[in-house]
Amino acid sequence: MRSTTRDFKKYYSPDVGGAVRMDTNTNVLGSNPAAAEYLRGQDIDLNEYPVTYSDNLRRALASLYGLDMENFVVGSGSDEILDVAFKTFTEWGDDCLVPYPSYTLYDYFAQMNGGSVRHSELTEDFQLDVDDIASSGARIAIVASPNNPTGNSLRQRDMEDLLARFEGIVVVDEAYGEYSDSSMIPRVDEFDNLVVARTFSKAYAMAALRVGYAVTNRDVSDMMNSVKIPYSLNGLSEGAAIAAVRDQGFIERSKKMVAEERPRLAAGLSALGFEPFPSDSNFILARSPIGHAALTAALKERGVLIRDFGSKRRLENCVRFTVGTGEMNSELLQKIGDIVGGRR
Amino acid sequence: MRSTTRDFKKYYSPDVGGAVRMDTNTNVLGSNPAAAEYLRGQDIDLNEYPVTYSDNLRRALASLYGLDMENFVVGSGSDEILDVAFKTFTEWGDDCLVPYPSYTLYDYFAQMNGGSVRHSELTEDFQLDVDDIASSGARIAIVASPNNPTGNSLRQRDMEDLLARFEGIVVVDEAYGEYSDSSMIPRVDEFDNLVVARTFSKAYAMAALRVGYAVTNRDVSDMMNSVKIPYSLNGLSEGAAIAAVRDQGFIERSKKMVAEERPRLAAGLSALGFEPFPSDSNFILARSPIGHAALTAALKERGVLIRDFGSKRRLENCVRFTVGTGEMNSELLQKIGDIVGGRR
Repeated sequence: MRSTTRDFKKYYSPDVGGAVRMDTNTNVLGSNPAAAEYLRGQDIDLNEYPVTYSDNLRRALASLYGLDMENFVVGSGSDEILDVAFKTFTEWGDDCLVPYPSYTLYDYFAQMNGGSVRHSELTEDFQLDVDDIASSGARIAIVASPNNPTGNSLRQRDMEDLLARFEGIVVVDEAYGEYSDSSMIPRVDEFDNLVVARTFSKAYAMAALRVGYAVTNRDVSDMMNSVKIPYSLNGLSEGAAIAAVRDQGFIERSKKMVAEERPRLAAGLSALGFEPFPSDSNFILARSPIGHAALTAALKERGVLIRDFGSKRRLENCVRFTVGTGEMNSELLQKIGDIVGGRR
Repeated sequence: MRSTTRDFKKYYSPDVGGAVRMDTNTNVLGSNPAAAEYLRGQDIDLNEYPVTYSDNLRRALASLYGLDMENFVVGSGSDEILDVAFKTFTEWGDDCLVPYPSYTLYDYFAQMNGGSVRHSELTEDFQLDVDDIASSGARIAIVASPNNPTGNSLRQRDMEDLLARFEGIVVVDEAYGEYSDSSMIPRVDEFDNLVVARTFSKAYAMAALRVGYAVTNRDVSDMMNSVKIPYSLNGLSEGAAIAAVRDQGFIERSKKMVAEERPRLAAGLSALGFEPFPSDSNFILARSPIGHAALTAALKERGVLIRDFGSKRRLENCVRFTVGTGEMNSELLQKIGDIVGGRR
């Protein structure tokens, strides 16, 4: 095996059964309705290769953001976008900067592509240590805003500062960007080193279809498109994504629900002895008043999956909850109340 | 950009219009009927991630071949399978052996992953030069059987010899394997270095859905699965592929049609002054009696796309035709007759 991949383990793959999933931060309102309607009515020729660089979806995205189709790179999930960014901009052994704590798969993408991971500690409030990253000498930096699993957005002025001072490409993963008030997408033409990654797996409620995209300046998108596998996005997912982009009403409803329910869930968790961290996302990281593993297991027994980060440094005893609908959150809080009440 | 990718160009992407496509070697019988029926009836939850390693499709494939699901790696097109093979088994700068003439994208996959391409000339009848490859010192070899664009299957005894003598991984790309009488799939457990790649884009008539797979021994598949991006295959494509695997009648009809039509098309081309090469595939490479570019352009004007290889070494003045239905082939031959008659 490639020397940088020998320690790879298979990915998180829980035994779900019929459990309520509050562990993956997908949209609890259910399948994207416009995408589902497109799929019910579609009659594409399965025998034809998709358009090579998914131009129709790139046009729809350009229209959504007021940019040009040449600002976009489309992939089979934002995972492919991250893979292509590493393939396009790193050489073997290059340092790849990944903040800590952040999304664990960033390390995997760097190593899979022959890179070496250099971590930079986020500050106490989980913001970038710009001085540390800018002076790291890394070839690429990948930061998440909102950050996962902490939930907070990164400060725009820190990202501007970083983009100006860091000598490599900065990938800003906005997987949960629809839930945040801040985005770097409108700024892509201002910087020569900014790549924003987005996904249809979270707010767009289309994780099953594996669609993601990068927004960046034309030069960078041209390089990434020439490296990415041609027509990697299948035709049905592309059609469904176009339909979903054109139905922003669903995204608005989803944002509104999260904006209403997130403070309610946070308050409920606080009342039960948790310490929730501030979130701009559709999930909340919180320190548990009882053992993280016991809590996660007890909730699973009661039919609810949450994500356990409690064994990780700086996230000691922390678990992550997807913000559910009002009903889901009430049931969650009641079940946690039963568990915590019995343990304390 | 990564030093090995700086010369990359965008991929073949013709302006199709309403032309008859005899350039991509997809199945001319049209969309896979079982896959289409599955898609019409599907009602999956778009909001749920696919099964991480596409276990349901791996089970269906295991049943088809009489192997175990652990023998399979599933990806978003066989392109992803090739990418994963290079990522799993090559280090930066490793020599990657690619025969010539063969499928042009192999060079791209090697270079995209930091490798260096070393070509090995196929023999005069487009078979492997086993001595040359075995002594090359390359880390990985990728050979196609049937070979593309020449159409012939590689000799099994050469592949056995190569697998025994070559010290790295041998990827056998059987993209057109359904049309050939020989396959290395039944042999995967005999060798520690054999990876067979297959696709649903050709005989299975599902290019739009991007599904491919590797068949190999359990150790190699475990390594490849730990390197590949989790749930890279979308849920709809997986479901459609399972339906297609269970409907072998369509594959049998497709093989039968090609077996009947290929000699007829070859004879027709010969009668018009072409020199067709022997084929075990659903396409025929043939040397044109008139200029390759003029022929390709004149057919395009008449609404038929073919693939032009005539500027390549050893394929001087050669073009490639997908074997069509009886009607398609008759029309093609008539149009070629008009063109050739006018030029000679």
